[in-house]
Amino acid sequence: MTRIKKIDHIAFVVDDIEDALDFWHDTLGLELSHVEDVPDQNSVVAFLPAKESEVELVRPTTEDSGVARYLKKKGPGMHHICFEVYDIEETLAHLKSRGVRLINEVPQIGTAGKKIAFIHPQSTHGVLVELYELTAQEPQIRLARARRLADRVLTGGQTRASAALDFLRRIRRNRGNSE
Amino acid sequence: MTRIKKIDHIAFVVDDIEDALDFWHDTLGLELSHVEDVPDQNSVVAFLPAKESEVELVRPTTEDSGVARYLKKKGPGMHHICFEVYDIEETLAHLKSRGVRLINEVPQIGTAGKKIAFIHPQSTHGVLVELYELTAQEPQIRLARARRLADRVLTGGQTRASAALDFLRRIRRNRGNSE
Repeated sequence: MTRIKKIDHIAFVVDDIEDALDFWHDTLGLELSHVEDVPDQNSVVAFLPAKESEVELVRPTTEDSGVARYLKKKGPGMHHICFEVYDIEETLAHLKSRGVRLINEVPQIGTAGKKIAFIHPQSTHGVLVELYELTAQEPQIRLARARRLADRVLTGGQTRASAALDFLRRIRRNRGNSE
Repeated sequence: MTRIKKIDHIAFVVDDIEDALDFWHDTLGLELSHVEDVPDQNSVVAFLPAKESEVELVRPTTEDSGVARYLKKKGPGMHHICFEVYDIEETLAHLKSRGVRLINEVPQIGTAGKKIAFIHPQSTHGVLVELYELTAQEPQIRLARARRLADRVLTGGQTRASAALDFLRRIRRNRGNSE
């Protein structure tokens, strides 16, 4: 039975989104679609699509999230891989029946109505694995959010990505961060 | 300028290919295309395609390779990400001009004539990055190698993947490994 549709994204934990984008976007040349505050993951995330998968740069925004603890303990680097599956409930039930340790036994509902669940690295030979199912509502929710974002940030011919970067730079300047 | 074509593969270092395949192939359900000895990388590698990218499970076969030292120090887990680029020489020259620390300043020629080079994690915020350019010869070389492999292992209606697994199991049994 085919459960896996594709690799949806690879997430790298970073301690500074702008510095990380200097390499991944400005230097290596990955596209940058947008930078987004993701409160339900206590993170700011930069989305860098590469054909049908994405690189995601994740900066924790709180001290006590899993990703913040990971960054503190191991430093910046690869954090998890996310597979898009056809049916997340069926996949989780199957994994559970095979004795796989799940971090989420039922899917969590993330931003844009997406269904996600994590598998514990103990059962995957050390890799934190996220599963993700595209829901019927997600494309519509994403489109609506993108439009609201565009309305907010598209000014004077700026692209959304460069506006998002300007936004990050302004935040940093206001904080008096001199890096 | 667009340099990156796609994510080619994500490599996980493992201490036992067969055990790792129990999860990634038998349980999670990723396809297994083949298992291959890759002497120039001192590794046995299992290739698990997911649409246009692959997961690669890498088991070191010597004690002193980079991947062997990584496994010993950090245990099994995510090891590197590989991007397919349009022009590897141009990309390396560009990265060098921007002060990026390269592990390989000129492309190495790997199996099947592929050109590869690694970027040092110091310049990537902690991520070991491989670059890869598909050469004109590679599809032909791959096809010829796949045919030779098929001639060797396709017996009695077995698929190549299951024959490769049997091959691994026989090796293990002969070694008297009781895991």
